[in-house]
Amino acid sequence: MNTKRMGSQTVRFSSPVPILASASIGGKKEGEGPLRDSFDILMPDAEWNEETWEKTESKMQKEALRLALQKADCKAEDIHYVLAGDLLNQCIGAGFGLRELGIPFYGVYGACSTMVESLSLASMLVDGGYADHAAAVTSSHFCTAERQYRTPLEYGGQRTPTAQWTVTGAGAVVLGGRSNVGVTHVTTGKIVDMGVKDPNNMGGAMAPSAINTIKTHFQDTGRGPADYDYIITGDLGTVGSEILIELLGEEGYDISKNHKDCGCMIFDGDTQDVHAGGSGCGCVGSVFCGHILKELSGGAYRRILLIGTGALLSPTTSLQGESVPGIAHAAVIERLS
Amino acid sequence: MNTKRMGSQTVRFSSPVPILASASIGGKKEGEGPLRDSFDILMPDAEWNEETWEKTESKMQKEALRLALQKADCKAEDIHYVLAGDLLNQCIGAGFGLRELGIPFYGVYGACSTMVESLSLASMLVDGGYADHAAAVTSSHFCTAERQYRTPLEYGGQRTPTAQWTVTGAGAVVLGGRSNVGVTHVTTGKIVDMGVKDPNNMGGAMAPSAINTIKTHFQDTGRGPADYDYIITGDLGTVGSEILIELLGEEGYDISKNHKDCGCMIFDGDTQDVHAGGSGCGCVGSVFCGHILKELSGGAYRRILLIGTGALLSPTTSLQGESVPGIAHAAVIERLS
Repeated sequence: MNTKRMGSQTVRFSSPVPILASASIGGKKEGEGPLRDSFDILMPDAEWNEETWEKTESKMQKEALRLALQKADCKAEDIHYVLAGDLLNQCIGAGFGLRELGIPFYGVYGACSTMVESLSLASMLVDGGYADHAAAVTSSHFCTAERQYRTPLEYGGQRTPTAQWTVTGAGAVVLGGRSNVGVTHVTTGKIVDMGVKDPNNMGGAMAPSAINTIKTHFQDTGRGPADYDYIITGDLGTVGSEILIELLGEEGYDISKNHKDCGCMIFDGDTQDVHAGGSGCGCVGSVFCGHILKELSGGAYRRILLIGTGALLSPTTSLQGESVPGIAHAAVIERLS
Repeated sequence: MNTKRMGSQTVRFSSPVPILASASIGGKKEGEGPLRDSFDILMPDAEWNEETWEKTESKMQKEALRLALQKADCKAEDIHYVLAGDLLNQCIGAGFGLRELGIPFYGVYGACSTMVESLSLASMLVDGGYADHAAAVTSSHFCTAERQYRTPLEYGGQRTPTAQWTVTGAGAVVLGGRSNVGVTHVTTGKIVDMGVKDPNNMGGAMAPSAINTIKTHFQDTGRGPADYDYIITGDLGTVGSEILIELLGEEGYDISKNHKDCGCMIFDGDTQDVHAGGSGCGCVGSVFCGHILKELSGGAYRRILLIGTGALLSPTTSLQGESVPGIAHAAVIERLS
């Protein structure tokens, strides 16, 4: 009899996996938004003294992890595994950013769900006794994402109303040790593809996977929306959040009162011209490792369900006429005292 | 006291994690090589009835996992996690290939080390009780890799002597249940970058990480080369293998008698015009899930050290003047009866 599994997609840890420390980095635009005070580091510009935006993004992962280690009072050799990834081809933000640190490395790719994917796996490695400490890191950068996924910035292309703005941000967490905040459950998502083909409507493409994972989490655990202070999605933005609330409501789960979305929290929709909100691995990455963990450790939140949402497309698949598969991974994070 | 960890980078499972079944797919050229009889499926051509090579590669992952499930006598819902990745931008081989199967999915990216990375994580998830069964899948395709990393095939570019030939292949394993072959140890690699900048010499770029991981494995476990029937690297090819044997020899570990490399095994170096040998996630993926596991279950091998080797570069990093970081993950696989 397996005592760790609950239902079809959820595991419950026998004791919460401690979140020992975290660090959050934001870009200039993020520093002008509502969460400006929650970042540990705000970059002065898009380059941060690097020659290319890709090198900047690698530096963001490195500095986020370094700062999290410092806050955790850990050396690199205390960390038995680091799990990290990003949106860049071949995940170079992680590979190049973390190469100097000498920590056993597992690269992960979950598109914008990467923060919660890496947190989930790292939690199991610590809970299972494979690691005393493990870290999870991710990033995104508006300029690297635009030139890889869309058009050169210099082209000045018009953005559609459903488009989201890739967050320039990074987040790192260190698990293990002792803390008053911990991970208690993980619900791992399946790939869900409802046939949305518009690569400028990521929120719409990812919402079905978020619905699937949240509903499964409630079924697996016997919990409902009222068991959480907040149910916080990664980057569905305004368009995807509306779909999520409506369709989960039809399934009998009313999350309209306590749903938040990091993509809607990080920018001011009225003044920052981001259309449907923020997106990117660094969206939930920097908001979770900054604002959300501060609210948990400070006691403003007691228990949340965090759902990282990712769109598993590439520019090539869109050009080949493919739809956009989505994935959503969830973790329950609690204040423990 | 942690009883699962040995030394700095190795974990030992209290009982071996069973490898219940596997499946291996190869392309036309692989079907003309020395391991032709070890594949479950040999594709008739590069397309396999798909419109694009990327769709073919996705199909290879799907069919490899389907066949492994069939051999394991498992349904998709019996598999609690599938860990998969590939070389394509945004890992679309895995994301699109596995979307129909409805199995909770963790995307991984370890370049050509992906088979051993996914096997390592899946082994820990099963050993830790998070999954009754878990699967690991990977692929590569000569045509998708060439157009993404190098030049369009139609261009007919000359290949350098140190270049390797990307294997068209896929491999899938199902862990859990009962089997006479299992994973006993996992040694997780650190990123090692010795400054090699030539993207046409992957073997040379990856060899230092393989040296580091193998040496660490011996130190962590107190074992040496004689404890293994074979020490099998993923895709160092002829150039990287020579460096590996020489430099490990200087460190006091003579593996010249029992080293093999999947990149050297899969093609006939004299007649198949592959220069320094095979490479790609599907190289170690298809050779491990085909030939190697057959040798283990048949009793020809009793205990091997398998080392997946990956180069964490992208075309963008090479154009930006970066060197090539390497990573190598190792797993011990034994015949149990």
